Amino acid sequence: MQVRLPKRTFAEALAMLERIIPNRASNPVLTNLRIEATGEGLRLQGSSGELDLELTVPAEVDGEAVRLVPGHLIGQVVRNLPGELVELGLEGEQLIIDSGSFSTQLATTNPDEFPPLAFDAASVARLPARELGRALARVRYAASGEDYRAIFRGVQLELHPGRLRSVASDGFRLALYDLPLALEVERKFVVPARSVDEIVRVLERTEGDLNLGLAGAHLILAAEGFRMAASLMEGEFPDYERVIPPEFALEVEIDAAALKDSLKRVKVLADRNNHRVDLVFGEGRLEVVAEGDYGRGVERLDVETRGGGSMVLAYNAEYLEGALGPVGGKARLRFSGAASPSVIQDVGDEGYLAVVVPLRV
Amino acid sequence: MQVRLPKRTFAEALAMLERIIPNRASNPVLTNLRIEATGEGLRLQGSSGELDLELTVPAEVDGEAVRLVPGHLIGQVVRNLPGELVELGLEGEQLIIDSGSFSTQLATTNPDEFPPLAFDAASVARLPARELGRALARVRYAASGEDYRAIFRGVQLELHPGRLRSVASDGFRLALYDLPLALEVERKFVVPARSVDEIVRVLERTEGDLNLGLAGAHLILAAEGFRMAASLMEGEFPDYERVIPPEFALEVEIDAAALKDSLKRVKVLADRNNHRVDLVFGEGRLEVVAEGDYGRGVERLDVETRGGGSMVLAYNAEYLEGALGPVGGKARLRFSGAASPSVIQDVGDEGYLAVVVPLRV
Repeated sequence: MQVRLPKRTFAEALAMLERIIPNRASNPVLTNLRIEATGEGLRLQGSSGELDLELTVPAEVDGEAVRLVPGHLIGQVVRNLPGELVELGLEGEQLIIDSGSFSTQLATTNPDEFPPLAFDAASVARLPARELGRALARVRYAASGEDYRAIFRGVQLELHPGRLRSVASDGFRLALYDLPLALEVERKFVVPARSVDEIVRVLERTEGDLNLGLAGAHLILAAEGFRMAASLMEGEFPDYERVIPPEFALEVEIDAAALKDSLKRVKVLADRNNHRVDLVFGEGRLEVVAEGDYGRGVERLDVETRGGGSMVLAYNAEYLEGALGPVGGKARLRFSGAASPSVIQDVGDEGYLAVVVPLRV
Repeated sequence: MQVRLPKRTFAEALAMLERIIPNRASNPVLTNLRIEATGEGLRLQGSSGELDLELTVPAEVDGEAVRLVPGHLIGQVVRNLPGELVELGLEGEQLIIDSGSFSTQLATTNPDEFPPLAFDAASVARLPARELGRALARVRYAASGEDYRAIFRGVQLELHPGRLRSVASDGFRLALYDLPLALEVERKFVVPARSVDEIVRVLERTEGDLNLGLAGAHLILAAEGFRMAASLMEGEFPDYERVIPPEFALEVEIDAAALKDSLKRVKVLADRNNHRVDLVFGEGRLEVVAEGDYGRGVERLDVETRGGGSMVLAYNAEYLEGALGPVGGKARLRFSGAASPSVIQDVGDEGYLAVVVPLRV
């Protein structure tokens, strides 16, 4: 086997795989990268046990071979190589990595020990990779980091006729994103949030369309150069749509960045336990207020209001910041009062909708 | 009291003080910043208990006042202010901070509780602040992070007729820096490494000369705009000069960056316990080699050698990298064999000298 490829291509692929390959694992074979010289290029596989990733990178390949090498070690070696070009070879069970003035021999192991990764699935949908990435990335923040309700540690993907929806919640807040899509199926499944993070990272770098498939309890994503399989969680989200109020008493439009900056400033003074900030709306204006043991902070902002004149609402600042996070330009905020969930939308991206429940004060 | 000053000036000064002011302290008053409106500007004081810092920043001041405010809180507030200009006022015991659309009231406490900071000392030397900063920064890495010998957790400053020397060691390596200086005294004292880090940070931003003084067990540094007092450690370094060999069998000059890059690459393969890398010198060439459980890495470099032809030396890679760290251009390496300490110097900055002991193999 002889393989030649640009260092940068190789290093970038390894960096993505290193994010998935565990440093330690109850099954130690998973700490390895499976490296295969094929007619299609250099094929690299890694698995966390929960998420499998295969990347095939273009390379000059002479002869076929497949070996396992310690995943993080080869990542470190390749990142630090001095030359622009990398040459790989096999001497017995040693993988030789040459680049410029530097030469490495790495011990490899038998590939038969590596769990076979299965990426075959009938395609359920074909869609632009970046749009799926966006749908996942926009809602990811709202997933729970706690064990409180296990299903909320995942992101729900829903396939409906005509659209794909991503949803995340931790029981106190909710984010969803609707993507119009020529679909005919009706399916719901929940992907662990940790896998979602890695899927988003891969999709961000992917041009063009991908195939989305389902095989048993796995979501399969495949496009030119990569294939992924993510184990799905058992169960689905409880009916969340009933928490979204159909009507609102007050609607406000405001520059999202200005409100985020203001929350960041004001929350420094907030109570350390509940992070409470108050939004005090008057005609055409908003005061963002926080008060804690060490003092009080107030910021006055101009806003466009529709509906009821004045209203006072209290929130956990972190939740409000989270909901505004994905909004780039103008945010639309809709309120029904201190006892009802509030809704935040992105004026420039109608697919996004977040629900935040005010604090009871 | 009314004070007006640019946000940036204020925020930069607070950032330096926040590095010293503890988040928690057995004496809670030390978590405060002492803020004083004076005819000379806004005077800010903070103390870690071990290191005291006073910064006086230019400001428009109307009326005098002095209060204590939580140090990290005011730092956070000021960093996030929306305007270019900050206005400070006092309302009773509340410090008012206004900037643009944002207004804060911070609770303050009585300044009498703050320990009086003493910065008075007869000047022992006057020298460029940045040069003292460089002398400290160049050797700091060699100080010990362990409790093994307490005195090695500090940096020794030596005042000799005609020069100032900084020295750090952890018992296995040594770094020193000589700065020619018109001095007449002969004094040695040891500054805790943690204080050295903060002193370096302040000196890097200081133009012009400072006064170096000694008052009791404190080092006092003072210049336009700042005063610092650092508690000194008890004792002094054992006689370290005897570990520096007077003669060498082999002298090598090499681009420091090339050798550092090479060590970084090769050490990935090194034994995880002793981080061993070998330097194998031949006529005009050097091989940097490491070998561990997972394989072997070799890099070949061209070097200029003087003296003995071939020599093989083993080092802890981290120690060699540390010693090369402050060397910008060409490094001079001097070896007397595998059983003698090696010396690393900076060809472009003769003040610097590092000693590294080879591994016994």
